[in-house]
Amino acid sequence: MTRSFDTLDVFRALLAQAPAADQSARKEAEARNGQLTKPPGALGRLEDLAIWYASWRGDARPAIAAPQVVIFAGNHGVTAQGVSAFPAEVTVQMVMNFQHGGAAINQLSKAFGAKMDVVALDLDRPTADFTTAPALSEAELLDALNAGWNSVDPASDLLVTGEMGIGNTTSAAAIALALFGGDAGDWTGRGTGVDDAGLANKTRVVREGEALHAQAITDGLDALRCLGGRELAGMAGAIARARSLGIPVILDGFICCAAAACLEKTVPGALDHCVAGHVSAEAAHPRLLAALDKTPLLSLGLRLGEGSGAALAIGVLKGAVACHSGMATFAEAGVSDG
Amino acid sequence: MTRSFDTLDVFRALLAQAPAADQSARKEAEARNGQLTKPPGALGRLEDLAIWYASWRGDARPAIAAPQVVIFAGNHGVTAQGVSAFPAEVTVQMVMNFQHGGAAINQLSKAFGAKMDVVALDLDRPTADFTTAPALSEAELLDALNAGWNSVDPASDLLVTGEMGIGNTTSAAAIALALFGGDAGDWTGRGTGVDDAGLANKTRVVREGEALHAQAITDGLDALRCLGGRELAGMAGAIARARSLGIPVILDGFICCAAAACLEKTVPGALDHCVAGHVSAEAAHPRLLAALDKTPLLSLGLRLGEGSGAALAIGVLKGAVACHSGMATFAEAGVSDG
Repeated sequence: MTRSFDTLDVFRALLAQAPAADQSARKEAEARNGQLTKPPGALGRLEDLAIWYASWRGDARPAIAAPQVVIFAGNHGVTAQGVSAFPAEVTVQMVMNFQHGGAAINQLSKAFGAKMDVVALDLDRPTADFTTAPALSEAELLDALNAGWNSVDPASDLLVTGEMGIGNTTSAAAIALALFGGDAGDWTGRGTGVDDAGLANKTRVVREGEALHAQAITDGLDALRCLGGRELAGMAGAIARARSLGIPVILDGFICCAAAACLEKTVPGALDHCVAGHVSAEAAHPRLLAALDKTPLLSLGLRLGEGSGAALAIGVLKGAVACHSGMATFAEAGVSDG
Repeated sequence: MTRSFDTLDVFRALLAQAPAADQSARKEAEARNGQLTKPPGALGRLEDLAIWYASWRGDARPAIAAPQVVIFAGNHGVTAQGVSAFPAEVTVQMVMNFQHGGAAINQLSKAFGAKMDVVALDLDRPTADFTTAPALSEAELLDALNAGWNSVDPASDLLVTGEMGIGNTTSAAAIALALFGGDAGDWTGRGTGVDDAGLANKTRVVREGEALHAQAITDGLDALRCLGGRELAGMAGAIARARSLGIPVILDGFICCAAAACLEKTVPGALDHCVAGHVSAEAAHPRLLAALDKTPLLSLGLRLGEGSGAALAIGVLKGAVACHSGMATFAEAGVSDG
């Protein structure tokens, strides 16, 4: 694979130089919103969403015509610690399920008109067990970030990143602990469904992993390297690329948000082009969303990953943008504006 | 118009005899849900929604292919009491906006693949001011219920009912007070945006109207006649017809739920085929949803009416049913189930 960046410092620079939202498009969209045939504010959060989307697209009257869902898969050495209710071979089995169209995310992508791509990242080479060594080497991290960066279709107008990787809630919890502090128990949940003993073991693993690498972690990319996984790095790379292309992103659940947090903790503001699609049932997701200052669009108890909650939120964003760009103004419709 | 029922007692009988959900389809859908390629429960509320939808369609693996949105409009004599921030002529102006495709609900219906119909009910004949007389005669109520009943397309597989009617949050608040008790202030909100003085006046009107008719109201249909409006009766008629046809319904905001409550307070269980699409920003909507024992799918601060929140929730229900009916089972996909 040809790399788009060859060092982490170049990636950091790309993040730092990423474009901001278009304030002129924002102002124009706000003005349009005030003229639409509805009482002021009556579409609630849909109004803010449409204006936000318009500002990142640089278009006061945008459309969502080409959403892209990219699912990254990776395997985790930390599964040797018995942190998941499912065996590691489920990762590759689910990748085949994605490729054959049988997973939840296939149905949701289709339902909301999104193109879906699957990026399986070296499934035969799990990360190192992060309780004994950094999960990834710098070269491995760069490869996964590049894979994410290059997975984004520049012609798309909305991005959802999802993941599959047995063991990756453990990785995400350790990252959140490293980035935001607190206790290991604050960030550790039941993932796909471990029991009480499993949760206690998982919490121990998160605590030990974070403690081992705490000295080495000075920003989000260090956390991604020491405690992350290839699919988390892939999501981070894709979210960063979307920013560089002016493509808004809907964040998914706990693991996606942990990957995204690595960008925010490297360059503050790096997630300004992202909205939280949902709050999942994974115990620490509300805390992580609060740490990122993101308010979720949906709260429906999902805890599947795969980008499923974010894909469902495509519908909300599409509805918001359709109203904003398609409605008549008071003047056009001849309606008295109060 | 040919009536489908000629007396309120026949309508009451139709409600009482309405079919229940198909328990065999429910059981089959539950069994299918347990075999899909995801950890148990990982799709959260989407799983319950899909099973609920399957049970009402009598099909363990259903599809949503033909949603219908019907918007009812009516005018209210109680606007003479100065209860709305908008003049009454906005009702007919907005009906024209619906017909020309310029309203929010037009964009949302299109975004979610729903056919949209508009039923304007005698806009040149407002209801009586309910602070001085019953809003509707029995004949007028029957006409509006029949208009709703006959508006439902038997070929549709999902129904959203919405409304437009300057003054109708006042009517809805008075109905809620009559049906559920409490104080007038508990049920009265700002509607399209009245100020503090307007809210105090509106609360007075709700209190006086309910007090005037309390003796005459023995069930939900009485409340609809004394305090309602044609568009509320239209929604009630449509929701009842959907039940008779096995078509699930997504309820919209405060006014739609007040209309629906008239059915529930006439025949308990009459809303079992309905799900709450959203909780609106109208102050009393959470209380009304609680009284109906309905948990909303969305909470995005909408307060527009027109069926807008319910239409947005079509996307959630479509996503739920798409996952349920389209996903592979563990056996089909060759995935280890933990």
